[in-house]
Formats: sequence, C-alpha cells, structure tokens
Amino acid sequence: MSYYKGVLVTIEGGDGSGKSTHVELLKSYLDSKGISFFATREPGGTDFSEAVRALTKDTRFSDKSEISELLLFEAARADIVKKRVIPALERGDVVLMDRFFDSTTAYQSFGRGIPREVVDNANSIATYGIKPDITFYMRIEPQVAFERRGGVDLNDAMEIAGMEFHKRVMQGFDQIAKENPDRFVIVDTTQSIDNVFQKIVSNFEKCWSKHNKEGK
Amino acid sequence: MSYYKGVLVTIEGGDGSGKSTHVELLKSYLDSKGISFFATREPGGTDFSEAVRALTKDTRFSDKSEISELLLFEAARADIVKKRVIPALERGDVVLMDRFFDSTTAYQSFGRGIPREVVDNANSIATYGIKPDITFYMRIEPQVAFERRGGVDLNDAMEIAGMEFHKRVMQGFDQIAKENPDRFVIVDTTQSIDNVFQKIVSNFEKCWSKHNKEGK
Repeated sequence: MSYYKGVLVTIEGGDGSGKSTHVELLKSYLDSKGISFFATREPGGTDFSEAVRALTKDTRFSDKSEISELLLFEAARADIVKKRVIPALERGDVVLMDRFFDSTTAYQSFGRGIPREVVDNANSIATYGIKPDITFYMRIEPQVAFERRGGVDLNDAMEIAGMEFHKRVMQGFDQIAKENPDRFVIVDTTQSIDNVFQKIVSNFEKCWSKHNKEGK
Repeated sequence: MSYYKGVLVTIEGGDGSGKSTHVELLKSYLDSKGISFFATREPGGTDFSEAVRALTKDTRFSDKSEISELLLFEAARADIVKKRVIPALERGDVVLMDRFFDSTTAYQSFGRGIPREVVDNANSIATYGIKPDITFYMRIEPQVAFERRGGVDLNDAMEIAGMEFHKRVMQGFDQIAKENPDRFVIVDTTQSIDNVFQKIVSNFEKCWSKHNKEGK
C-alpha cells in the first residue's frame, strides 16, 4: 500500500499471459474515465533506464554474473521510481506498470535461483520502499503459453529447459501471491478477454474508490 | 576474513592520499618476492565493468538518482568479484584492490547521505559475502589533500562544499575502521613515502605469514 495520493497498479505474470493486451485496455479505460495516469514498462521509461536496458541486452556481456544482471535491473528501476513513479503518485495519478519488482522475485529468484533474501533486499533498495496498491497476476500455465505460441518440441532440450524455467517462475508468482493476499488479484487467463478485463476493471474500481474515500 | 586460500588486500582512503603510489610499490614488492597476485581498481577490471563505468560517467545521465548510481557501482563490482577476485583467491593468489566496498560505504553513505543500511545491503549483495583480510586505510585530512593539489579557494562555494563532502567521507572511513579493528590498518599519510610503505609491507607480511601458517 503506498502512502501517496495516487494508486500504483502493477500487472504481473509469465510471458504469453496477455499482460500487454490488458495494459492497453486499462489505459483506454482510464482515458475514457478521465483519470490521469502514467503507464510504463520495466526496464525502460527514462533515458538512463533505456541505456541500462541496452546494456542488459548487449550480447558482448552475456557472460555477466546473475547478480550483476539483477543489480542492473535494479539500477534502472531506481531511476524510474524516483523520477517518474513517485512524482506521479504524489500528484495523485494512477501509475500503471507492466511488470515491477514481483517479476524480479519470480524470474531472478524462483527462476534463476538467486537467494530470495538477496532479491528482496535489492528490490527494497531500488523501489525506495513503495509497493503496489493492487497487483493483477495474469496466471498462465507455461504449457498453455507455449501452446499459444505454437507448441513445444519435446525433443528439444533447450525448449524443455525453458519450460522448466517458466514453471519455476509460475510457482514463484503463486508463492508471492500467497504472501500478499491484500494486494494480489489472481486472474485466470484461460477465460475470454472480456471476462478477464471485467475482473480487472471491477477490482481496479474497488481499489480506486476505496483509495479516494480514504482521502489520500 | 576470506575463507579462501588467497589473501584479499584492499587500499582505501580519500583522494590525494597516495593510494596509487603505494599500490604500485606493493605490486613491485609482490613481484620481487615471487608472490602471485591479481591487482585491480574499481569500477573496472572486466569488459562489462568498464561498460558500466562508462555509464556512470556519461554526462547525459548525470541526473540519475543516487540509488541508481550505487546500484551501477554494485553491478560492476559483482562482475569482477565473481569472475576475477574469487577465482584468484581460490587459486591462492594475493588480490590487491585499489578501493573496494568500504569506499562505497564512505562515499555513498557518509558522503552522499544514502542510509547506511541500504549501502551495507547493496555491498553484501555485490561482494558475494567476501571481505578483505587486511585493509590499509590511507588516512588524510581533506585540508591537507586539497593543499597538496594547490590549495582550496575559500571564496568558492563549490570548493567549500567539496571540502565538507570529503570531511564526511573521512569521518566515514574513521568510523568503518573503528568497526573493523581486526582487518583495518590505519596509515598516517603525513609520514614519508618510505615510512608509509614500510608500515604497509610489515603489516602485509604479518597477514600473509599468518594466513599461510593457518594452511588455508
């Protein structure tokens, strides 16, 4: 729960879970209601973050350590949180983030095996302590996501390793959701886009009106 | 104290304290004794660290947040620690670092005001938990360092602010030295180069022979 006038909304989940579609729908919804918002995606969102993003993707450095990769992500995060997210929340805007620190926990800790405590520490440094008011977790079984993309070749070791990785990430998101029932909304992405979006909007509206009633 | 066969030696202190001179002297000494060593300077030492170093110095991003700067330094550090420092210590080499995490504590926390706990956490993530076996703290009053460089213009607000900053950094190193009497050797840099280096060598030799006796 943030202590700002605005509301921080995050959309989380594995690849192929339909996050981007619903971020776009939510942006149109906020526009239609005349609610001022700032939407962003990590890493990125400031010139510095984009430069760091480029560094994370630079193949010359693909042998960098996992801790270095984690800290790069966090350096980019700290910049956008300080310069964009916190000021928007102070103005009373809705901030809409396509992935935030829960993704780091799910991917770097549950997925890559960096100790949870290390990732939690890094997350807390880079976020200046802010937390989402509401997190939509677009839950999808990796098997389903793979099939949406044309299926997985069970004779391909790389693809099977990929599946295992994405299963651990999903188990990570499940665990984080369990630890944070106050802010997590688990969205069943096997439903139709309309049904999924209805669930998102109704939960957002509850959060928004509660927040405004509390007069923050 | 590291749990490796090698010995980790760090040289710390403010700008103008003569660190580089003594790093060079110590390298020649180790060479003359036939002791295998790896010497480095932070940030830098790997291609990735050099790229991060360039990013920290890029004036397009001079408005990045202090936390982002801290995390960039730490990302560079994690890479060199994992790829160079730990393997050298495992081989049983001496590792000689011109600045390590104590500088981050002194500059970013005591100097720039980032909470100590945040810097300590970031340091412990990036170092994989390793600590120097011996740290030479080249102590110098900022006033003296400024005078060595031609004096400070007391009518120049920037220079006075710089002096204040460097005083806080020195107080930081003093505090860290107090907290770590087991590994800190405080070196009075107002002495002659010969006297200073004699103190460094005799303390290094004590540490090295103790380490070898313990059969690590």
